[in-house]
Amino acid sequence: MIDKVIAHIDEHNKANIERLKEFLRIPSISTDPARKADTRKGAEWVHKVLTGCGIKSEIIDTKGHPAVLADTGPADGGPTILVYGHYDVQPTGDEKLWKSPPFEPTVRDGDLFARGSADDKGQVLTHLLAAEAWMKVARKLPIRVKFLIEGEEEIGSPSLDEVIHKYKDRLACDYVVLSDTPKFDKTTPAITYGTKGLIYKEIVITGPKQNLHSGSYGGTLTNPGNALAVIIASLRDKDNRVTIPGFYDDVRPIGDDERKKMAALNFDEKGYMNAMGCPSLEGEKGFSTLERRWARPTVDVNGLGGGFMGEGASTVIPARVFGKVSMRIVPDQDPAKIAKAFEKAVMAAAPPGVRVEILDHSSCSAYVSPMGTTGMDAAGEALKLGFGKAPVFIREGGTLPILPMFKKVLGADSIMMGFCMPDCNAHGPNEYFGLDDFHKGTRASAYFVDVLARATTR
Amino acid sequence: MIDKVIAHIDEHNKANIERLKEFLRIPSISTDPARKADTRKGAEWVHKVLTGCGIKSEIIDTKGHPAVLADTGPADGGPTILVYGHYDVQPTGDEKLWKSPPFEPTVRDGDLFARGSADDKGQVLTHLLAAEAWMKVARKLPIRVKFLIEGEEEIGSPSLDEVIHKYKDRLACDYVVLSDTPKFDKTTPAITYGTKGLIYKEIVITGPKQNLHSGSYGGTLTNPGNALAVIIASLRDKDNRVTIPGFYDDVRPIGDDERKKMAALNFDEKGYMNAMGCPSLEGEKGFSTLERRWARPTVDVNGLGGGFMGEGASTVIPARVFGKVSMRIVPDQDPAKIAKAFEKAVMAAAPPGVRVEILDHSSCSAYVSPMGTTGMDAAGEALKLGFGKAPVFIREGGTLPILPMFKKVLGADSIMMGFCMPDCNAHGPNEYFGLDDFHKGTRASAYFVDVLARATTR
Repeated sequence: MIDKVIAHIDEHNKANIERLKEFLRIPSISTDPARKADTRKGAEWVHKVLTGCGIKSEIIDTKGHPAVLADTGPADGGPTILVYGHYDVQPTGDEKLWKSPPFEPTVRDGDLFARGSADDKGQVLTHLLAAEAWMKVARKLPIRVKFLIEGEEEIGSPSLDEVIHKYKDRLACDYVVLSDTPKFDKTTPAITYGTKGLIYKEIVITGPKQNLHSGSYGGTLTNPGNALAVIIASLRDKDNRVTIPGFYDDVRPIGDDERKKMAALNFDEKGYMNAMGCPSLEGEKGFSTLERRWARPTVDVNGLGGGFMGEGASTVIPARVFGKVSMRIVPDQDPAKIAKAFEKAVMAAAPPGVRVEILDHSSCSAYVSPMGTTGMDAAGEALKLGFGKAPVFIREGGTLPILPMFKKVLGADSIMMGFCMPDCNAHGPNEYFGLDDFHKGTRASAYFVDVLARATTR
Repeated sequence: MIDKVIAHIDEHNKANIERLKEFLRIPSISTDPARKADTRKGAEWVHKVLTGCGIKSEIIDTKGHPAVLADTGPADGGPTILVYGHYDVQPTGDEKLWKSPPFEPTVRDGDLFARGSADDKGQVLTHLLAAEAWMKVARKLPIRVKFLIEGEEEIGSPSLDEVIHKYKDRLACDYVVLSDTPKFDKTTPAITYGTKGLIYKEIVITGPKQNLHSGSYGGTLTNPGNALAVIIASLRDKDNRVTIPGFYDDVRPIGDDERKKMAALNFDEKGYMNAMGCPSLEGEKGFSTLERRWARPTVDVNGLGGGFMGEGASTVIPARVFGKVSMRIVPDQDPAKIAKAFEKAVMAAAPPGVRVEILDHSSCSAYVSPMGTTGMDAAGEALKLGFGKAPVFIREGGTLPILPMFKKVLGADSIMMGFCMPDCNAHGPNEYFGLDDFHKGTRASAYFVDVLARATTR
């Protein structure tokens, strides 16, 4: 049966590309209130594809943008999977930086350029089309597949917690499957098995009640700008180790086996550095670039401001400065514990003579998927069949708050299959998705349910 | 004759206040290219006042904003003084912080609120009005008085050096007189005999070629924001001593006599602190507040910026951050030597992985006026007559680059008579000048030329 399904996908590839373009023409920018109706159109489009091939689907309203919830219904056997994805997209940013308009999908050199092509419409659609192919060819899927396609991912999924709790029973599954991560390189698909958590704080320092003349008052009070520098500098040592007491206490060490596997990936450090444009790669002493990127916690300044910020010079002592500082944390760091340790360290480093306030912007734990499960092994096999090359297993420095949420509420681990390129310009101008990857991803998704069904009925 | 001059000033006080308001309505913000024409209007207004009472005046064009040069002509005797001041003003900053619009002069509780009221239009005008009173009453001044009122003081007087050199002969004088400094407290006028120098630098740090996702890239490169904090924090130690090697080498120590006099001023530390709104007074260990303020060099952050500066959170690693950092230096620190030491220290503190550029915004040495000269003594007497209370002799943490310039080119020392309040909010929102001080300052200026004439013809 799988051969007929794959044949169906191959035959319909051209038509599927046109359907992806149609999906991409919907400017479903979730953060833009002016695009509220367009964002809903994204949900309706997904709903139509699902119902169009006979899958029971429902548009679930939330306080914000709707989610689409679908279910192929009870199957003859095998595990149940929940395909999670999002139909909303990032804003376009400066449209002048785009070579073709962000909502006019354009093919160049085999790549389809449009906002949302990789993140996440193109990748979501592979799973919808694979399910459709099964429905068309076999009138059913070999395992039970559910879908949760939301419209608020790019604004932090504010309604998702409520949706998952409310529809907990309907969403019950053995694995969550998502494609919102990249391949390892041009030819190698990847399964991402770990993401970092995030704690985002803002340090606000106030001193005098207004900006003061730095000559008339300098030397007699603590300058909030100097104080902020002292505080931020105190958070790390010369070896780029975080100095917050207790910060590393619960960090899960990188195992020897994992370390070896990371080293074996032969990561192209020079290419990576050149793509970023930095003069050198730097970070915590004693760890490789990939280890730091994927499995070591960080403290980063995300923004600074205060005092005179214009061109030229103005001799003021700032009344108020701020530093946005975030930490990417790893398993098994507890966000609440680390947040508290951070606050304590900041207060301890603050010089006298200023007021220090710490604002809380977000907090989320890291996630690591167990390896060697039936689902993980099946995903590896399916990607190999779909792409003609075995995937590598990688981690990711970014944060997906939904992963620990699914684990907690549904008890299900997540499998992240990456079909797009690592430099796909998600969130930036000229986002793209390779048409070949779109096709292969659809095949891989079709293989996945087949392999899963066979693996557990064997 | 002096009594008639004073009577004239007293009688015209109300009208003079209206004229000050007119002057203050001109938004002569020298740093703002959009205000170029308005700035010129400031010069024209000054020129009109001078020529209006029969003083020969000329508007001198420069590469930037014009200066007004005037001369009462040869006198019967006495020394020649040059009144220096400026008609340009600082930007308003956030206008929402002003209780009344910065260019709509408004009286509250006897104080006139407007940008430039104290710095320097109101104080400059006292000297113009005193000269005018002499001209109206006596048709001449008892000594020769020259005026140089420029329009680029708030942007560092870029044309002044050229003007002073070019018009060296026309500007020749025995003393430079200026009122761009404050009183000591509400009831005590002050003569400022020393100012600090200024070295203003901007540290610009660049890393990746664009802002990067702090999850995907964090931990693998030096974050320019963290690097800036490390650099700025390295410039001072826990005792607030500057750590730049050689920084204190040439600092002129505070003599025992001066130290005693400063202590005898019984400076109201608590009132000063409350006026600033800081939780405590802090600074270099081992020196009193006044010593630090007037005679000890400082390093201050004037502005910081980079990365995500909006409300809320965005997880970026900034591509570029800047820190505006200035040093107030004291006699006998050499600006060029200190600037070089600063640059060396910044580069030494910079972590690897980023590019550091240091921009140069200004550089000026400190100045100390000799005490006990005829001019200084006459100024003390005139302030006592004008204000009804003997002035105190103080120093100032601010910088007047023109003082060492006048000394060098014209060979003349400067006498700084302060009429405005120490907390007049120069450069900040709600700048003000007491109307009583405006009146008394005008009287003091009128007395000054009289005392000087009698002192040297006695």
